[in-house]
Parts: sequence; C-alpha cells; structure tokens
Amino acid sequence: MQEFKVTTGALPASEKTYVTGSRADIRAPLRLIHLHPSAGEPPFPVYDTSGPYSDPTVTIDIRKGLPRPRTAWVEAQGDTEAYESALAAALRAQGSAKPFPVVHTPRRAKAGKAVTQMAYARAGIITPEMEVAALRENMGRKQAKEALARDGEPFGAEIPDFITPEFVRKEIAEGRAILPANINHPELEPMVIGRNFLTKINANIGNSAVTSSMAEEVDKLVWAIRWGADTVMDLSTGRNIHNIREWVVRNSPVPIGTVPIYQALEKVNGVAEDLTWEIFRDTLIEQAEQGVDYFTIHAGVRLAYIPLTADRVTGIVSRGGSIIAKWCLAHHKENFLYTHFDEICDICRAYDVSFSLGDGLRPGSTADANDAAQFAELETLGELTKIAWAKDCQVMIEGPGHVPMHKIKANMDKQLAVCGGAPFYTLGPLTTDIAPGYDHLTSAIGAAMIGWFGTALLCYVTPKEHLGLPDRNDVKVGVISYKIAAHAADLAKGHPAARLRDDALSRARFEFRWEDQFNLALDPETARDFHDQTLPKEAHKLAHFCSMCGPKFCSMRISQEIRDEARTAGMAEMSEKYREAGDLYVPAE
Amino acid sequence: MQEFKVTTGALPASEKTYVTGSRADIRAPLRLIHLHPSAGEPPFPVYDTSGPYSDPTVTIDIRKGLPRPRTAWVEAQGDTEAYESALAAALRAQGSAKPFPVVHTPRRAKAGKAVTQMAYARAGIITPEMEVAALRENMGRKQAKEALARDGEPFGAEIPDFITPEFVRKEIAEGRAILPANINHPELEPMVIGRNFLTKINANIGNSAVTSSMAEEVDKLVWAIRWGADTVMDLSTGRNIHNIREWVVRNSPVPIGTVPIYQALEKVNGVAEDLTWEIFRDTLIEQAEQGVDYFTIHAGVRLAYIPLTADRVTGIVSRGGSIIAKWCLAHHKENFLYTHFDEICDICRAYDVSFSLGDGLRPGSTADANDAAQFAELETLGELTKIAWAKDCQVMIEGPGHVPMHKIKANMDKQLAVCGGAPFYTLGPLTTDIAPGYDHLTSAIGAAMIGWFGTALLCYVTPKEHLGLPDRNDVKVGVISYKIAAHAADLAKGHPAARLRDDALSRARFEFRWEDQFNLALDPETARDFHDQTLPKEAHKLAHFCSMCGPKFCSMRISQEIRDEARTAGMAEMSEKYREAGDLYVPAE
Repeated sequence: MQEFKVTTGALPASEKTYVTGSRADIRAPLRLIHLHPSAGEPPFPVYDTSGPYSDPTVTIDIRKGLPRPRTAWVEAQGDTEAYESALAAALRAQGSAKPFPVVHTPRRAKAGKAVTQMAYARAGIITPEMEVAALRENMGRKQAKEALARDGEPFGAEIPDFITPEFVRKEIAEGRAILPANINHPELEPMVIGRNFLTKINANIGNSAVTSSMAEEVDKLVWAIRWGADTVMDLSTGRNIHNIREWVVRNSPVPIGTVPIYQALEKVNGVAEDLTWEIFRDTLIEQAEQGVDYFTIHAGVRLAYIPLTADRVTGIVSRGGSIIAKWCLAHHKENFLYTHFDEICDICRAYDVSFSLGDGLRPGSTADANDAAQFAELETLGELTKIAWAKDCQVMIEGPGHVPMHKIKANMDKQLAVCGGAPFYTLGPLTTDIAPGYDHLTSAIGAAMIGWFGTALLCYVTPKEHLGLPDRNDVKVGVISYKIAAHAADLAKGHPAARLRDDALSRARFEFRWEDQFNLALDPETARDFHDQTLPKEAHKLAHFCSMCGPKFCSMRISQEIRDEARTAGMAEMSEKYREAGDLYVPAE
Repeated sequence: MQEFKVTTGALPASEKTYVTGSRADIRAPLRLIHLHPSAGEPPFPVYDTSGPYSDPTVTIDIRKGLPRPRTAWVEAQGDTEAYESALAAALRAQGSAKPFPVVHTPRRAKAGKAVTQMAYARAGIITPEMEVAALRENMGRKQAKEALARDGEPFGAEIPDFITPEFVRKEIAEGRAILPANINHPELEPMVIGRNFLTKINANIGNSAVTSSMAEEVDKLVWAIRWGADTVMDLSTGRNIHNIREWVVRNSPVPIGTVPIYQALEKVNGVAEDLTWEIFRDTLIEQAEQGVDYFTIHAGVRLAYIPLTADRVTGIVSRGGSIIAKWCLAHHKENFLYTHFDEICDICRAYDVSFSLGDGLRPGSTADANDAAQFAELETLGELTKIAWAKDCQVMIEGPGHVPMHKIKANMDKQLAVCGGAPFYTLGPLTTDIAPGYDHLTSAIGAAMIGWFGTALLCYVTPKEHLGLPDRNDVKVGVISYKIAAHAADLAKGHPAARLRDDALSRARFEFRWEDQFNLALDPETARDFHDQTLPKEAHKLAHFCSMCGPKFCSMRISQEIRDEARTAGMAEMSEKYREAGDLYVPAE
C-alpha cells in the first residue's frame, strides 16, 4: 500500500499528550518536548497541529479516515438532521480517482436553525469545540509563571493572560474570531482564529490539471500539519476534485478550506461565461456535505470595480477573481456571488461553513498595492461581513498579496476599520517582486509584520510560488517559514507565553545542550542535519563549541567562564563598585 | 589547478559593462540584463558587485590577483610613501597555507598626513573613488524617467533623485557615509555605505580552527560577490590567517573587513589574558599593510558594562566581545582598545582603514534585546565616533543581533541619536530564537525592517547560523536572502529607482516572458530550476500558464483576455458608465 503511506510518529524527543477539559471527551492535543536532565526543566509544551498521526496509540489507516469525536457533540446539539444526499453518489463516480471507501451520511440544520459556532456563542452556549480551542491556546501557560511578563506592542489586540472557554465564546459572538468547524467534519480538532489568539498559518495543497494525484495530496496534508499548519486549503482542480477532497477531509484533523468556484468552473468545462448561480449553489452544498470548513467566496469582485484594474501592472491575479471578472464582463451583469450572497449565507448557516471573503482584486505586484480596485473590494467585503453576521455566519476576510513594507500597515488598519474586527487572513504579503524562487522569504517578511499588526491567519507561500507546484519539501519550507512569521508576530504583539520557547531554546544554546537546541527548534531535523554536516560525531553534541568558531573562539564558552569567575568574585558587588567609581579610564584624547 | 578554481562568466542574459566618469580610468561596473525583443524594453541595468570575474575580457588568475586600478589614484594624491614592512616577511612564512605568490610593497601616509576619504572630503576634494561610487549608485537612473516617482516612508533619510560625486563627498565629510578603501587595496571597486544610498549587504567568510582552507575561502569570496555581497568580512582564525587574508584581499574587488582581535588572540595561543596593546597594534599594522578596508574594533566593551551581562539568558555572544571581557576581568583593567583608541585612530588614518565599531555586548537572544549592557556600549560607541572623526577616520557602528520586531526601531533611533548619523551596520537582527536552520529567514525579517528604518549595511546570516560553518550553498542563500531584505528596505524607503526592477519583473510575469522573469530575478538559476522541475520543456517557457494553476485557471491569462476585450469595448468609458450608475445591483438583504 505504498500509495497510501503518510508520515506518522512523534517528533524528536516529543510526547503526544492531551489536556482534558470539563469532560473526558473534551481534550486538546499538546506536544511535550522532553529536555536533558541537566536542564533541570520540565518538558516544554508546544501547540500541536499534527493530529492523531503523531499519537502512537492511534492506528492510522487513511482508507478508513480519522476517528470522529465530534459526531456525538454535533448530534447532542439536537438541531441537525441526517439526510440522503442526491448529489454525492453521482459525484463519487466521476473522474479517475479512487472514491473514499467509507460513505458517511451528511447532516444539515433542521429547518430554520442556525448551527454555527457564532449562533451558539451569541446564545451564550460554550460548545465543546470552544472549550477544546481554549485549552490548546494556553500551551501549558498555567504552569509557567513567567508567562505573565508582558512585553510587546499589540496595536489594539487584547490578548488575555489565560484563554478561557468563555473568552473564546465572546470573541466568536462578537465576530472577532472564528472557529471553522463544519458539522460534517467530525474528525476535526477544533481551533480558533482571531487576533486575540495565537497567530495561525494556512498551507495550500491541491493538484492542478497539470500534475499530482490524490495520494500525494493526503500525504502533503499530513506533512503540512506535522510541521505546524493550522488550517489547510485544498485548491485542487481537474476532474477528480470531488473524490480527492473526500480523502483529504476524512483524514484531516485541521479545518479544510476550498475555493468552490474552481470546481464550479470544472463543471462548465472551464468556460467562465457558462457559470450559473445554480451550478455554484450545488457545488457549495456538495462541499458542505463533505465537511469543508471554510469557503473562499469572491463576492466582492463587483462589476464596477473591474475597470479599475485596467491600468495595473499585473491586472487580476486571483484565479477566482479573474473567473468572476470574466463572467461579469461577458454578461455585463453584477457578480452573481454578490447578488446571491444572502442565499450563500443560508447554506453556510445550515452546515457551519465559515466565510473566507476572497480578495479577488488583490495586487499581484508591488506596483499595484493598495490601489483603488483593492480597497474598493475591501469595502464591499466589509458590507458583506455585516450581512453574513446577520445570518449568524462566521467570517474572515482575505488580504494581499504583494505589498512593499511601507504600505502594509494601511492594509491592516483599513481592514479593521471597514470589516468590524472580523479576522484578517492574508497571503504573505510579498515585500518585493524580484526574487522568484525565494518568495517564501519575501513574503515571510510581510507576513511577520502584518501578523504583528493584527492579521489572525497567515496563508503560506512556498519557494515555488510563481514558478510551479510545490512538492513535499516546498510544503515543509513554506510551513516552517510561516511558523517563524507567526511566532515573530506573537512575540512582537506581546503574547504572554510566546517568548517561553525562545528562552528555553536560548538557555539550551548557552548551556551547550545541543540535543535540546535541536529538539526545541521548529524543525529539529534540519537543525541537527546542519550541525552534523560539519561535526557529525555524537561526542560533538556534548561539545562546548561548534564548527562556526571552534573551541578557542566560542563566545558562549568564554562568557560562561566569565560568569563562573564573576560569581566567585561577587558580580553584583563588582558592578556596583565600577558604577560608583564612574569612568576608571578616560579616552586618550 | 583545481584548487584555484573560481566561478567566472556573466550571469544569464547579462552583459558586463562600465559607466565612464570624468576620465577614462574612472569607471563603474554595471550589469545589463537583456530582455526578449517582444518586451520592447531596453536592457535593464543592475548594480554589479561581481568584479572582473564576470567580465569576459579579463583573464582571471587568482595566483596573480586582480588588476590594480587604484594604484595610480593613490599615488597621485602625493601624500603616501612606499616602505619595506618589517612584519610581513616573517608572517608569510607562518602556518601551512601557501603564501600569495606576488609580493606588493605597502604604502602609508607621509608623516602627519591623513589619507582617508573623509580627510579628502572635508578638504573639498572629490576623489576618483567618490566618483566611481556615485556612478554605480545611479544604476542607469538617468535613462529612467519614472525613477523619479517617489513613494515611501524614509524615516528621515534624504535620498536624492540622482547621486552626484559631490553628494558622495558631502555625505562622507559629514560622517553619514563611509567609503571603505584602504590605500593598500588597489584592486577595489569603490562603493559607498550610508543611509542615503542603496542599502548594502555584507557576507562573512573565513575558515575556523575546525575546518576549511584558503582555496575555499577565495572561492566563497568570488561566489558571495557574484550573488550580490557589497562587502566581505574575512573572519578566519587559526595559524594560516595571514596568508589566507592575503589571497582574499588580492582577489577582492569589494571592501574586506576583519576582526583583528581574532588574529591577536592566535598570537598569544588563545589565552585572552595574555593579549597586550603592543601585540594588537602590530596586528592592526600588519592587516592595514595588506589592504584590509575596515576593522571591527570592540572598544565599547568597557569594564563597567561587563557585570551588566551577568543576568542575561545568553551572556556575551560576540567572539570579540567575550575575548575583551575576559581580558578586562582577568586584569581588572579597562579595555585596552578603549584606552588606546586614539592610537588606533592614528593607524586607521595612515592607511584609510574604516572603523566598524563592534557591538561586543549585542544580545544573543530575544530575551536580552535592548538591555542595559547593549545600550551602555552603544553610547560609548557614540563617544568613540567623535574621537575617530576628529582624526578624519571613517566610522560605522555595529548593531544587533537578536531583537523581536517591536524592539527593532528603538535600536535605529538610539543609534541615530547617539552616533551622530554614522552608518549603522547590523547583524540581522533575528526576530525569534526558535528556528535554528532557518536563521537566514528569521533575520531577513529583522534586516528588512531595520534597513527600512535606516541601517546602511546589513550583515548576512546563513542557514547554518548557530549550527556550523556555512558552505558554498549557504553563502549563496545568505546573500540572496539579504539582497531581498536590502531591496525591500529600499522600496519602503522610497528609493527613487528601487521599484524599477520589481516593475520590470512584474511586466515579464504578466506577459508570460518566462526567460525575462528568470533573468531579472535575484537568483535566475534557482527560478529557472524551480520552473523546470514541473514543466521542463523549452516550449513551456513560451506557455501562457504554469504548473501552479494550469492553462484553464491561469488568472494572468484570463486577466489579459479581459483587458483585450475591454480595450475593444472601451474600458475607460465602461468604467465611467458603471460609476455614474452607482450600484447596479444591491445585495439581497
């Protein structure tokens, strides 16, 4: 079964564990990194997105899918019903991809009910999903007293010392956070997206018409979450799209997002002009039944804005945006996603699919950043947010794109101003256009900054951006790059627990605990490999130096010697003495 | 002669050329990137650091060294004299590295003369060096009318539309810029470092006691400047240090910096306590005779500041800083670099070695950023700057290190406030400590930001930082990462010509000129390779799509179709009509 192989097992020195909430079935995953006994420190807890794949007690069989703990929670709400889907059977037979072997009956809201986390939150209900999301946000903060030392510039974010389930509820109720959790995705480990929580990252997977298969996509999903992807978007296109998505959702512990217009376009053989509301609506329902947790909907690409892109250097670079623009111009009609937005809300409300309001007119070059087209669309997204909220639908807002550093903050400020505090979800932004092959880096700069300013979810960019389809290694590099950006943002915002990991790693570094330094790193395998390229012997991992400086020039070693000597001499007294004496020597002028 | 092989030849589609100044021998290198005829655009000019290695008309033989065009300029000043060095002959015989085959007689200032670019600038003299530096800054800006469109936030930088030799002179005279150009480095292609010029980057090379050889170091030098390093520091340690440096300087068209304390420590067999002013002084003279262009001098590590590092998470992480700290504590004496600073200035003044005042107490972890030790030293560096300036010595100031994003700007602001506008030269800063293996990226985030705020020279960090000695590929990744950071900084500062390259590449992208997109990239080889991994055929480089989306979903292709259709229909009129009509449709509320 080589074709169904995915990566399982714990990360180095790591233990998969769970924090249990108010009931035994409410539990949040947590990874504990064990340190060397000489550290004298307890295992270090880190947020864990890897799902059951890193749990040695779970047997993984991707032909069966993951365990479905949320089934009981959804049923217990008593506001949904199972039904036979007319759409699904026919779709399973399409394309050449193997259908997922297990068929689950979809559920939807009973007539008139809103089954969204926002509806529950507004009704004052703390769902099990909210409780799990709260538990995992704290990353063992209760154990860490120093966590409460605040140091940062939050730009208006209000991150509490500890995340309670009630705080999660309140943030969702007021629209500042979303908890993407389709009732048909019971495999989900719930998580929350909002600027008062840890900054999250999204990884895109998906085949294209040109290359890649279903087995590869599931492998990329598992690989992406192993390294830290909080959500995954399946951007597959081509004839196999329905079945590929089923394999992905059934095997995903993280929220899955899609861009439904891609599949709708496949249904009309790629002719944008032939798209209709009915085809699109059925596509939404089909995907909602499969358990997709959030939809990118390009409802803000209004007919009147399209001419604003005429003089751009790179026109419209969003796939969805360009499809809609083509439809609008061909028919000389307003975007049907805009005119039917109310009906889209009704579908999202019945399955709890969150909106990711797409920025179809985002800039594709630094030249086009913050232009009239981009900001006109953003204002419309603000309008649509209010409509969705009126239907109890959860909303986040997509943002750019390509933006030079001095124009990044204006994006965040305007989004906050016009979208009522709904979470921002940006692609990068890339801070220059001149480095294809390194756009994970050009964009990590922008992502770190906009994350600091308040973006809640950062969509990764891989080294292959603009050039080709990412492979497994590109996915990993993209994820790690964005974990760095998100963490740098949390540090700068003054997240109360973010610096704990930096400090733990820095202590390991200063004390030459090489193994701990590797194991606490975002990518332990690469850190170890780079060290071993010059000093491969096991003994070198106990050495009080590395190959950069060698033993004689190791500043940390000298610094420790100084500290040891000074401790004997009484460092504090010495400091006092020198300061009292003022300048012992004056420069020879 | 495999051991003496370096990379030569032009970059893809590139032509090595020169811009000639007021005399035939005053010429600045420039690279022209030729574009596809369908672009209808002239060749695109880019700043060129690669030296004669990319010039097909120059025969490269690293055993002879590069041509020495500055010899005539230095001699023409009439203020220097050649002399037999008592030091050099003995040093050449030391160690196991092959001595450089050609022996050049060193020069120094005639008694009482200051031969620094600052001295000339203050005397109102525009040197040939200043003229070359001015010519290359403009990157063909005279040809580009749109270059004058300003868009940025310069934070007080005052970048003129065109750089004149007089502007270079004035900036050097007032201490806001340096032109590192030892009179014994006639192979140099002069360049200028200051916040009113293009942001520059430095690459570190150098063997360590543990690994690597002379041939490797010359190869790394040539490789680093091929990809864009503006200056190179030779951080070699070990017994071969004198001869390795001679090979490096004789083959370097870019300024070479060193940290002389490393060699001084070798001379006392690694025992910091045994260092003396006399040994250090002789080391400075030895290196000045070889042509080193700037010295890192850790004169700000004062005895009274050392106890301030006692409670740090990572103590002292500068190699030079820790050596000096150890000496100070062992003798309970003030730093001899501080007490002898005046005499160091006299040496620098006699050869025109620029100061890079070292930040020996920089933070080695985000926990230690912006602390009392760091800022106390920075204030002392400001004091020393004034002393150096009084001796007509050129000065830049080294900065951190590890700094979370919200504490970066305070570093730049304080440096500007206390160092009189002398150029800032920072290492990163790294914005988080948790990603060893990716510190080129954690630090490129900080470098882009601090470059935007005003840092003139960014010292690169490679992926091997904290783990091992960088190899050739690490050097390239480090250089490209920092070219990205420097360029993103220039864009954000509103450098009048920076966006030209972004726009040229974006046009190539939008018009599916794949070859032009590769060739305009900072790393054409990687861009092409990534494209070819999924679509290797030559025909695909003419295709109006790539493997990311395939032909049907290519937004740029659709966007071009829209534009073509709209042009026929009269886009401007349409836009007007829609806007007048107001909302054609209102949302279905």
